[in-house]
Amino acid sequence: MRKVVLGLGISLDGYIARPDGAVDFLFMPKDYSMGPFFATVDEAIMGRKTYEVGLKLGGGLRSPSRRWRCTFSLTRMPQETRRRSPSSTNPRKLSLRSFGKRSGKNIWLMGGGELARDFLKDDLVDELYIGIVPVLIRRRHPALPSGFPQREFTLLENKTFSKGMIALKYARTRKKPKRKM
Amino acid sequence: MRKVVLGLGISLDGYIARPDGAVDFLFMPKDYSMGPFFATVDEAIMGRKTYEVGLKLGGGLRSPSRRWRCTFSLTRMPQETRRRSPSSTNPRKLSLRSFGKRSGKNIWLMGGGELARDFLKDDLVDELYIGIVPVLIRRRHPALPSGFPQREFTLLENKTFSKGMIALKYARTRKKPKRKM
Repeated sequence: MRKVVLGLGISLDGYIARPDGAVDFLFMPKDYSMGPFFATVDEAIMGRKTYEVGLKLGGGLRSPSRRWRCTFSLTRMPQETRRRSPSSTNPRKLSLRSFGKRSGKNIWLMGGGELARDFLKDDLVDELYIGIVPVLIRRRHPALPSGFPQREFTLLENKTFSKGMIALKYARTRKKPKRKM
Repeated sequence: MRKVVLGLGISLDGYIARPDGAVDFLFMPKDYSMGPFFATVDEAIMGRKTYEVGLKLGGGLRSPSRRWRCTFSLTRMPQETRRRSPSSTNPRKLSLRSFGKRSGKNIWLMGGGELARDFLKDDLVDELYIGIVPVLIRRRHPALPSGFPQREFTLLENKTFSKGMIALKYARTRKKPKRKM
């Protein structure tokens, strides 16, 4: 079954962005590549704010490869955009649509925090793939806002890269059957 | 010079305690020992709330070895306690007192979050020693509340232990002279 992988770059104090949405504190070490991760996914899901930041950066609607699908959670989006990319804000519906489409590679839950929180609330996150950069940026946009129950994970991978960036991979530890959809 | 080491156990989402101060989600892997860390410190500094949680657990005033000093930040403490352990809430004064006493081992800044925030605000934290357990406990007591400027660190160590606990050691990356005291 396709997995939902929450993949995030965060500061050491757990934040994903500055107040204006800037992520300038994140960096990509020379010895690190997103390639192996990209090879495991063929769809990305992101929330409205992440989508808009992506648009500003000029890359929001393009996936690294044309073989990807990008899905957006479009609550409160302008009507014209909604027409272009009809979607939903309901994680179960979003996931169901994605899972239903076809089997195959995993789904990258890009964030932001609020969408991640909604997915965690519905226990739809199967793996975490977190890059931590060694900086404290103070409290701004938390990677994982409050509003979901405790979730246990199993550490699958812990790798260290240059400039002190670490990459952590966790799998959701579930005792009960996973999804009721 | 003695270093101030902020040593914390946190959840994967960066929290140090539940609403009631409980830290039941933290654990000590069998293959992990605090011994090597304890060997590098001979003084512990903690805030009032951490002190009180320690008292409840019955170990708040005892250091693992009799050779340690414990210092408390005693704002808003009952008068009788304050008489027993006179101290200050001002990080610079606390540190100055500790640094002035003698050279030797490092100082363990135990927390909690508010005291850590005050030390970070005054840029008195030299190293971070963080244990991350693989659980999301939702937003409760943040390990590092807001109120201090951005702080860069250099990763010194990243070790993986059983049950998915990772131990990270960071040193403060400073470009300017460190302390003005």
